[in-house]
Amino acid sequence: MSLDDASQKPHDRLAAVLAGDMGRVNDLIRTRMASEHAPRIPEVTAHLVEAGGKRLRPMLTLAAARMCGYEGDNHVKLAATVEFIHTATLLHDDVVDESGQRRGRPTANLLWDNKSSVLVGDYLFARSFQLMVETDSLRVMDILANASAVIAEGEVLQMTAAQDLATTEEIYLQVIRGKTAALFAAACEVGGVVARAEEAQVQALRDYGDALGISFQIVDDLLDYGGDSSATGKNVGDDFRERKLTMPVIKAVAAADAEQRAFWRRVIEKGDQNDGDLDHALALISHHGTMEATRQQALVWADRAKSALATLPESDIRGMLTDLADYVVARVR
Amino acid sequence: MSLDDASQKPHDRLAAVLAGDMGRVNDLIRTRMASEHAPRIPEVTAHLVEAGGKRLRPMLTLAAARMCGYEGDNHVKLAATVEFIHTATLLHDDVVDESGQRRGRPTANLLWDNKSSVLVGDYLFARSFQLMVETDSLRVMDILANASAVIAEGEVLQMTAAQDLATTEEIYLQVIRGKTAALFAAACEVGGVVARAEEAQVQALRDYGDALGISFQIVDDLLDYGGDSSATGKNVGDDFRERKLTMPVIKAVAAADAEQRAFWRRVIEKGDQNDGDLDHALALISHHGTMEATRQQALVWADRAKSALATLPESDIRGMLTDLADYVVARVR
Repeated sequence: MSLDDASQKPHDRLAAVLAGDMGRVNDLIRTRMASEHAPRIPEVTAHLVEAGGKRLRPMLTLAAARMCGYEGDNHVKLAATVEFIHTATLLHDDVVDESGQRRGRPTANLLWDNKSSVLVGDYLFARSFQLMVETDSLRVMDILANASAVIAEGEVLQMTAAQDLATTEEIYLQVIRGKTAALFAAACEVGGVVARAEEAQVQALRDYGDALGISFQIVDDLLDYGGDSSATGKNVGDDFRERKLTMPVIKAVAAADAEQRAFWRRVIEKGDQNDGDLDHALALISHHGTMEATRQQALVWADRAKSALATLPESDIRGMLTDLADYVVARVR
Repeated sequence: MSLDDASQKPHDRLAAVLAGDMGRVNDLIRTRMASEHAPRIPEVTAHLVEAGGKRLRPMLTLAAARMCGYEGDNHVKLAATVEFIHTATLLHDDVVDESGQRRGRPTANLLWDNKSSVLVGDYLFARSFQLMVETDSLRVMDILANASAVIAEGEVLQMTAAQDLATTEEIYLQVIRGKTAALFAAACEVGGVVARAEEAQVQALRDYGDALGISFQIVDDLLDYGGDSSATGKNVGDDFRERKLTMPVIKAVAAADAEQRAFWRRVIEKGDQNDGDLDHALALISHHGTMEATRQQALVWADRAKSALATLPESDIRGMLTDLADYVVARVR
């Protein structure tokens, strides 16, 4: 299959174009997750890092740097940094969510224990930090430090907003901006910074990552009420069981009559869930058409992502990033 | 009481000399632990930060910078950075240890939940990272990034070494170097770096912090078998119940006869602990004189800390840091 075969998924086409860089990122990840003194660390991280995630975030860094004509080595370090931050947050998320499955495999906290997930996550954060220091760029560190703070804040906000029917779409947007879009945005931005791109281009890359991340997370949350676990590695209804307020539910609650509100209060606020409740929730979501309304929101953000790219010079990679924004939403159908 | 009253505890004398700087550190900590979007964050951190820890680590940074003649502002940021890293590790430690008490108060994971401790800890790490970026010093970031990695590695090593009677004093030293001495050493070192002290002095500060931290942790572990909870905020026997191999036990296991080994295997390896087992452990520790042998080791490290200081010019603060090394061990009697 040729590289420019448009029928290929856009992240597969990106992966093909960036294969050389990506191989170096994977080597670096493998080297840096080792620990001389604590063999538990590579056990846990290998389980997660080798689990075959799409490596979307490091790919964004590589793509951004290449698109801006970068020829050095630091983009590889930054891509690995971004993936370490992502992996660390996954480990901590699984503890927080008490999850049993991630990407279709048992989670680390289930295979080892919560302690290992917490401490190995901390180790990966520290390793990411060491890697970015090696790039000698204070600006890159500033971007990634800020992203780390926004991610952590988003996670705390998500935790306190869970079980709260008063959660608005505005709060939801703040949560997903933190937990997902902040790292997408930083991943793109540092690619531009390391390539010393013009300020307007750096900002455009950041805006692209932000909008792509928001669109991506809206669709992820949508799939939680309508995807199948073979495609997403998640089980339908995970968010429902964890009583998270995501867009399809927030919209359904806003449109609810008194009886429906009582239902949401029982299952989300009180956490009193019985057999058939997920089906009833799905029926309410379908009744109010909130899946489609949510998908429309994801499309709006995908369009914003594509508009941001217009600032950047035309190139093969730019075309693939544009297609990626479409593909992120197309996962729903 | 005058500042040079030698009868005062050395950290109180340091606190008095550094009171102005320390006030600014406390203000900065309060400002930076706020979160506009997630009020849970300041609730949790205030509980811990206001709990009246001795602020030993930030004081080391301030003392080191002042001792090297520093006149700027960055030492205040670095001191707050160091305290944030420390507080973050405490939050995660309490999750890992399933602790119920810290500094004589209920732990955050008990008052809120494990989720809050994990995520707020992550937030503090990110905040510490933002603060240190503001100092514009790549070298400082390198030191603190390396310290963070060594801390996390030490924590993982401690976890995997727990319950393992084969743990040697060498492994124990590695663990406490990671979990305690790494941050003491970095706290002192960055104080010298920010003051642009000569390389030999920076190294001396680092060596002082490393040796002081090791001495401090050995004594802490000793107090776990012989202190009282009003002095330490810990309960006697916490490490025993958590099946941690610390120096008094490692030495007692090394000296054990067959019957005693069977006891240690049951209580530490199998975790089969009954009423009276802690008393029996204390009796074995006393029988083999391992409390005193452990105290001797702490004294050796305190001496190393004091020798390291000899490289630095004589000053009031140097005198207090010397006394501090003595005081750390004197806590035992």
